[in-house]
Amino acid sequence: MLTVSEALEAILREVDPLAPVSCALGDSLGLTLAAQVRSDLDSPPFDKALMDGYAIRSADIRSAGTELLIVDEVTAGRVPSRAVESGQATRIMTGAPIPDGVDAVVKVEDTETVGTDRVRILAAETHPEQNLIRRGTSMRSGEVVLEAGRTLRAQELAALAEMGCAQVSVRQRPTMAVLATGDELVPVSETPGPGQIRNSNETMLAAQIEHAGGQAVPLGIARDEREHLRQWIQVGLQHDVLLLSGGVSAGKLDLVPSELERAGVEQIFHKVRVKPGKPVWFGVLRRKSDSKNGLDGGRNSCLVFGLPGNPVSSMVCFELFVRTAIRRLSGHQDAKPQTISARLAHPHVHNDDRETYFPAAFEWSAEGPAVTLMKWHGSSDLQSTRHANAMAVFPAEPVEYSGGDFVDVILW
Amino acid sequence: MLTVSEALEAILREVDPLAPVSCALGDSLGLTLAAQVRSDLDSPPFDKALMDGYAIRSADIRSAGTELLIVDEVTAGRVPSRAVESGQATRIMTGAPIPDGVDAVVKVEDTETVGTDRVRILAAETHPEQNLIRRGTSMRSGEVVLEAGRTLRAQELAALAEMGCAQVSVRQRPTMAVLATGDELVPVSETPGPGQIRNSNETMLAAQIEHAGGQAVPLGIARDEREHLRQWIQVGLQHDVLLLSGGVSAGKLDLVPSELERAGVEQIFHKVRVKPGKPVWFGVLRRKSDSKNGLDGGRNSCLVFGLPGNPVSSMVCFELFVRTAIRRLSGHQDAKPQTISARLAHPHVHNDDRETYFPAAFEWSAEGPAVTLMKWHGSSDLQSTRHANAMAVFPAEPVEYSGGDFVDVILW
Repeated sequence: MLTVSEALEAILREVDPLAPVSCALGDSLGLTLAAQVRSDLDSPPFDKALMDGYAIRSADIRSAGTELLIVDEVTAGRVPSRAVESGQATRIMTGAPIPDGVDAVVKVEDTETVGTDRVRILAAETHPEQNLIRRGTSMRSGEVVLEAGRTLRAQELAALAEMGCAQVSVRQRPTMAVLATGDELVPVSETPGPGQIRNSNETMLAAQIEHAGGQAVPLGIARDEREHLRQWIQVGLQHDVLLLSGGVSAGKLDLVPSELERAGVEQIFHKVRVKPGKPVWFGVLRRKSDSKNGLDGGRNSCLVFGLPGNPVSSMVCFELFVRTAIRRLSGHQDAKPQTISARLAHPHVHNDDRETYFPAAFEWSAEGPAVTLMKWHGSSDLQSTRHANAMAVFPAEPVEYSGGDFVDVILW
Repeated sequence: MLTVSEALEAILREVDPLAPVSCALGDSLGLTLAAQVRSDLDSPPFDKALMDGYAIRSADIRSAGTELLIVDEVTAGRVPSRAVESGQATRIMTGAPIPDGVDAVVKVEDTETVGTDRVRILAAETHPEQNLIRRGTSMRSGEVVLEAGRTLRAQELAALAEMGCAQVSVRQRPTMAVLATGDELVPVSETPGPGQIRNSNETMLAAQIEHAGGQAVPLGIARDEREHLRQWIQVGLQHDVLLLSGGVSAGKLDLVPSELERAGVEQIFHKVRVKPGKPVWFGVLRRKSDSKNGLDGGRNSCLVFGLPGNPVSSMVCFELFVRTAIRRLSGHQDAKPQTISARLAHPHVHNDDRETYFPAAFEWSAEGPAVTLMKWHGSSDLQSTRHANAMAVFPAEPVEYSGGDFVDVILW
């Protein structure tokens, strides 16, 4: 049986980033760049005032109260009409280009006007370069501003906007079908009969997909009946990813692995040495395609995850395995789950030979990052996750922890 | 001049959560609940098997190899047809209701079938309650499952789905107009002429709004001309929030405060003792309304922020002040920015009498949370934020820091 780490490597071996698409800049938040972007201009594009005030020559100011002749005014969006010579000043607004001859800007609050055409500088000295920024200081034309694979946040979007990139080449969001299986399931809007429960996994998985950057396509409930399951699997395989929940254990009606095989999906692994989530299944449908490398956006393959039906197992397997696949499909540089280190808030006896992911509450305590394990009634106990915002990770061997010991944590 | 903390309190005094709306469960990710939700059922709704295997009476197993008579089979979604008596077992699947008389489930991997109707239990003993979960263990009917104000993540959505809440009462996302002002600005798709720059603030603020849970309505560029600005302010005031960037400093063409006043917007503060972002302006337009408390979803007020035009100032003021307003409007319990503590990766001399928010890179080092300040060429240097994922906070007085000293950090 694979370890979690081996399973993650197996997934990454099978997954490539989706084909690039052109996207309006305003719609690209959270996506990743498919190609590097170089600057088409210096930033700032001209020597620029950072304050409202007067553009002057710093060498002119040798004592408090120096008076200068105002020879010009320049507002943002305009250009100076003349240079500033010794004994002169130009009234200037934040963001306006500074005139030739100038090496400093004095804030308006540090000046007084004298009559209609003179200004008194109150300070006894000014420093060269004060309150101005030179052309190209923060970025040079031709410089690589953002590398391929960069995730686009507000500040990256602003940098691209400054560069005039109204459209950007990004990785698509994967489309992901969600198919819950099981005769015990009824839709959320119905009242369960004896032995039945509502299909909460579809809602949960769709939300996890959305949060991870995919596009969820809920398909509803497939019965534990081969013909029915087969039809819905065919629908789901039209997407970049098909997530099934339930039907992957050792039970008599666990038809998912055999029906996936029949549909041509190659099994990569079945079962991982993890708790919860041991029965998790992963495979790939490879399509013959006329287009090369899917660069036209056509799909060459579909990744298929069979997640356990118990909600906590399903949730944990999603966070470990499916999120990793989504991040790689979406072009993120670090696809695997990131662990951080936090102190256990209480003692804990870990007694399992599987790597264990325990619902936990992470917080910033006075002593730094701390983690408290949730009361947990097993893998069907979704309620244990209501106050959890993380998973604490325990190794594939028994360990007794004292309060204050460090453990690895994956934040949700 | 207000401190940051006083400015935040002033904002929170003016802002109430928006009126509740009914929302389809699948569209509510990231929103907050407007009312508490009680469970309409026990969870699980029946005593339930957690494994595929055999439902038995644990007292029957006193030695390895005990054989039991198989009297029934129950799959998920079905109900047992009879009780299990001493010496008997029922074949059972994960998620199925356990029969009367049973107090344990033995995993199928730990059994062997004998002929057609008998099962051999390989272990020498089984524990009562093993591999099953009792009705109501994780949640009782009538119990408050989620409190008002709770932010809906995947696990909350799953809990609501389990409870049959296909629609939920949530706080609306605020609609937020963005109006950039300044004669120096040209649209992103145009090439700037002399003294001009592209309107990157609109793109940045819209992305920050989206990330914070609001709905951005970009209005384009308002010229530094009273009539033009006035018209666009009227358009913007139709929304829950109006963000302006630029035009709030001490310059000759800083028309924003006076035009807002003319439009009936009451100034709450102008200028905060913060760096960058000192000129920030905040006010409220109060509308007379026939409806009480806006419970019909009508808007009784519009919050107005005048952000400085320099992009880093604008970004920082958004993260401090606007995000706080959005979170309160959206019903979040903790609206104010949350600071955490991290070690400075290098020495730093802080020399300012304003509270300073410095673009910084936060990371988990081997010694715990660490923060590195970015090279920063002042408040127009947006490029300094490309490698930043946080702001380091420095107090309103000079302090010399050594590497390894703790500082407050706000994560983006």
